[in-house]
This record gives sequence, structure tokens and C-alpha cells, in this order.
Amino acid sequence: MNPFLRHGGNLDAARRAWPAAPEPWLDLSTGLNPHTYNAPRASDAQRARLPLREELVALRDAAAAAFDVVDATRVAPVAGAEAALRALPLLGLGHSVALDPALYASHDAAWRAAGARIVAPGDDADICVVINPANPTGAVTDIAAIRALADRQSARNGWLVIDESFADTDPEISVALWPHPRLIVLRSFGKFFGLAGLRLGFVVADQQVLERLHAAIGDWPVSADAIVAGTHAYRDLAWIQQMRLRLADESQRLGTLLRAAGFETIGGTKLFQLTRSKDAQRRFDALAAQGILTRPFQDQPDWLRFGLPPADGWQRLAISLERLA
Amino acid sequence: MNPFLRHGGNLDAARRAWPAAPEPWLDLSTGLNPHTYNAPRASDAQRARLPLREELVALRDAAAAAFDVVDATRVAPVAGAEAALRALPLLGLGHSVALDPALYASHDAAWRAAGARIVAPGDDADICVVINPANPTGAVTDIAAIRALADRQSARNGWLVIDESFADTDPEISVALWPHPRLIVLRSFGKFFGLAGLRLGFVVADQQVLERLHAAIGDWPVSADAIVAGTHAYRDLAWIQQMRLRLADESQRLGTLLRAAGFETIGGTKLFQLTRSKDAQRRFDALAAQGILTRPFQDQPDWLRFGLPPADGWQRLAISLERLA
Repeated sequence: MNPFLRHGGNLDAARRAWPAAPEPWLDLSTGLNPHTYNAPRASDAQRARLPLREELVALRDAAAAAFDVVDATRVAPVAGAEAALRALPLLGLGHSVALDPALYASHDAAWRAAGARIVAPGDDADICVVINPANPTGAVTDIAAIRALADRQSARNGWLVIDESFADTDPEISVALWPHPRLIVLRSFGKFFGLAGLRLGFVVADQQVLERLHAAIGDWPVSADAIVAGTHAYRDLAWIQQMRLRLADESQRLGTLLRAAGFETIGGTKLFQLTRSKDAQRRFDALAAQGILTRPFQDQPDWLRFGLPPADGWQRLAISLERLA
Repeated sequence: MNPFLRHGGNLDAARRAWPAAPEPWLDLSTGLNPHTYNAPRASDAQRARLPLREELVALRDAAAAAFDVVDATRVAPVAGAEAALRALPLLGLGHSVALDPALYASHDAAWRAAGARIVAPGDDADICVVINPANPTGAVTDIAAIRALADRQSARNGWLVIDESFADTDPEISVALWPHPRLIVLRSFGKFFGLAGLRLGFVVADQQVLERLHAAIGDWPVSADAIVAGTHAYRDLAWIQQMRLRLADESQRLGTLLRAAGFETIGGTKLFQLTRSKDAQRRFDALAAQGILTRPFQDQPDWLRFGLPPADGWQRLAISLERLA
């Protein structure tokens, strides 16, 4: 399979496929914030020993406060949102799953690997998975619809999983703060804070789910570096607030730039724009030849997703987009 | 449950239980090498982005070479040996497990949580788990016995899991290099290199196992910091060789010191000594009151395990042991 269709971030595959492309690559294939949070690092002593329970609790509490979760014991750190969604199908929560495989493919792959039966969104299922906002469309499921889904799943002793990996820019859409017994919310640290290499994410859920999760991943789910960085970052409410404003501005700027280059923008979040164009595959190749990696999609050959460039990447992107036309 | 009986490394619980103990604590409750490898850290750029496939391959290849595994594709990085042993029961390998619950309790807990039936070592089972060297006894299962077990499991289409978390000091006992289709070997990075906070370990197994493992943990199993440190450390064969000699010396020195203090030493590895004494619980408390944490065991109240002290901890340990007598 074409490696670029699986995930963003395959810079090494891009270098092999376009060896003549100018370095450094401008990687717009992910939805990571290019404005990396300047996070402290674990001390030598913290790297040497096992993480302490009290350090994990401090991380959990800081994240819970940032997510507006009152009962911090509902929050469990994991080694990235990907680790969380991979673990979920192994917790014995059910056998049928309603999800849209056109959306984030890892959910689909994880449930299929665990032997679950995948049904269409809206159909009856033990587990209903919603990505909010959706990736790559950016579509937002409104609060009333999530409430109705949660109640429906509750009535059948099922589960509602909401993947909020891209919700940090728009906290008003998050339902992590609901203490609903059948609701499981996934959060990502690396996307909003621009620190994907740390591998940190969270599961927000009832104790019966967190106990099963704990049995599946053990007592030391995240690294010392992730604990130190995450605890510090989630407490920095001023940075979080300013970054939300900045990303809102920049996502508008990116949309304007792409439309000027002849793309139709059909969705997105504050961290990426989804475009449609008849010759998307040619454009993907032409941008890659210029060292700019974007994100194509297997089942939607006319789509390309663009992440935000870093501050020094806008001009290069603008010039390359002009050359496309 | 008494937190010290579950795992070593519960320094925060120790501080609460003995608030008057002198700081810093001397933590001998784990089997971590106190001589931490001076590992490089991930760059800012590596922390910001997702780990690259080629970085994971370099880590895998360096680890495979250090383990004498010829086919490096049999080696998969995971976020610690604990993460590996927690994931194994979720891979659908079987329903019955032969293991000794008196040994490392996490194996037992992980399989029980997954609904497996635990049987005694030697009994027929889909999966047979052997910890080699055993923790905390240090007992070594010899190569011929492992060969016989592997063949027996193979004949019934079962699996043999060898946890070699403490085998780095004694490479001649490792079977990681066998390309046996029904053998699954677990390795730890943090114990031998003294970098437990990085959360890094490995599963060495056949492709069918590694594919299921991949589905369970996803594309980015370890952090950027773990990748950079691990790749560097496993290539440093001179350090590895010298450290083996140093730890062999120091474990002998520790055994001598403990026997002089009236302990019977009944086992151990190069990274810890297991002792027996009638008043082990009083000794555990008396050492803790002096800020020295050791490892007691639920079902063996006369056992205490002692890890190696750091270079500046020997004198303090010697003085505290004298006060016990």
C-alpha cells in the first residue's frame, strides 16, 4: 500500500520517493501544531527511575483541569491517542462497532484486528465511535446529537467512544467533562502542543473502563519525558488560550491561500484544511517534488489535506502553490 | 494492598509512610542498574514530530544486534517489558497459561485480567511463561530445558514466552537468537541501562505474533526519547561489556555485605540479591525508617530483595545494615 495513504508523517518514505526534492521537507501531511510548546524535559534522575505514582497523578490532574473534567480519577494517561484507540478493542467492551471507515482509518483497523463486526454509523452496535471533530473532514457532531447517542448506547448497555484528538482548539465541542458512565473520550496531547514524539494521550471514562485499560497497559503507561512535558503544558492556560486564537487565524489564512491556488476547501479544523480538486494526485506529486508533503486519501482521490506550515514555511508554500496553477 | 508488595520503585508511598526518613531515599527496591547509561536525548525536532519509520528500524536493528538476533524483523520495540507482558494476553494466543504466580506478579495479573486460566508450571497449557532469570529468585532455566519446552509447545501449537528482562547481564542464557516459530522473548531496556523512565522494551517473535502486537499497540509504540537513547545504547558494545563485568563484581560485593549483616542470600541476579531472614519485615521497616527502600514479597514474608546501590550509596547501606544487627 502507498505509505502516504496510511498516515501522515511518512517523511522517510517521501525522501525515498522524491530523492531530488529540496531539503528540508515541509511536512504538511499531519495535523500537528507547527508552533511547538517549549516543554521542559525529564531530569536525568527521572529518566533513570520508574515514573512515580504521584507524578502520574499530577499529570492526570493537570490534564483533567485542562479538559474541564471535575473528577480527575476519570482521566488516564496513555502513550498517545493511537495507543488508546488500539487498546480499546481489546477491553472486551463488545463485538459490534458502528463507525465510518472513511474517517480515521486506525479506528477501523484496530477494531477489525480484534475481530469486531463493523456496521455503518447509525446502525445498532455495542460500541459507537465518533470522531469529533472528524478527520479529515473537520465535521463537528453537535452536543445534542452526542447526548442522544450516549443515551441510546446507555439504554442498550453499550458504549459511545468520542475521539477528540482535534478538539483542543475548540473546547466548546468537547464532552470529556460529562461524567456519563457509558461515554469514553480519547484526547491527544501531541497534536495541539506540537509534541507528537512524546507519545502522550488520555482516556476519559468510568472506572470499570479504566480498570480494564490499566490491566491492558500496566502501571507505567507513559515516559518520564511525557509526564514532565504534559504536566507543565496543561497547566499553561495562557499559552493554550493564545494558541487557540493564533491557530484560528492561521487556519483561515491557509484556507484563503489554498482557494487562491484553485483548491476548493471542503472542511477542516484549526489544525488542517481539507481540499478537493480534480487533479489532486498530480498536485500531490508536484508539491512532493518541491519537498512539500501533503496527505492524500485512499478512497477519495480528489482530496488533499494540508496541515499548517511553520512561520517560515508560508512563503515557500505560497510559491509552490503558484507553480501548480 | 501494601504498595511495596506490588512493585518496587514506590518512593512516593515510602515518603508518605516514613515521613521522618532522611532524604534522599536510597531506593534498592527495584532491579535497575544504578549506573545509568549516559544516553543522548531526542532533539527538539524529534520531540515535535511523529517518530519516523526509519528511526524505529534503526532502534530495532541496534537491539537485534545486541541480542544476537540475525533476522532483525523478529524484533519489535514496545513501551517497556511491562507493556509487552500486558499486551501479550490480548493477542488471542490461547486460553490457558502455565506460570508460577509466586514469580513476577504482573504476568499473572495480566493473564488473569484477560480471562485466561492459570495452571501450574509443567502442566499442559496453550501458553507457557518462563522468567529467565527468574525474579526475584534469580533461578536460571537452562537452555536444554527451554529447548524441550519450546518443542513441547510447538507440538501442541502453543506458545512459549520467555521473559528475559534480567538477561542482559548474562547473555549466554538468552534464547532471543533462536528463530523458533512458537517462541516469544521479552526484553527490557531500562533495567540494564538504568533508564526505566524512558519506557522501552522489545518483543522478539515470529511475524504472526508481531502483526497482532502491532494491531494492539499501533504505529508509534515508543517515544522519540526512547528511540534516540535506545539506538545509541545498544550500539555501545564496549559499555555493555564493561558494565557486565562491573555488575558481576558489585553483585558479589552486595551479597557479601548482606551476609555479614546476618541475611541468608538465597538467590539473585547481577542486578539484585534475594535474602531470607526470620525478621525480614522488621528489617524492611528499620531500613525504611533510615530512608532505604527494599522489596518485600506478599507470599514470602521472610524474603527481602536488595538492588545494587549507586557508588555513593554503599557506605550508607553498610552503616544502616550494621544498625539492624
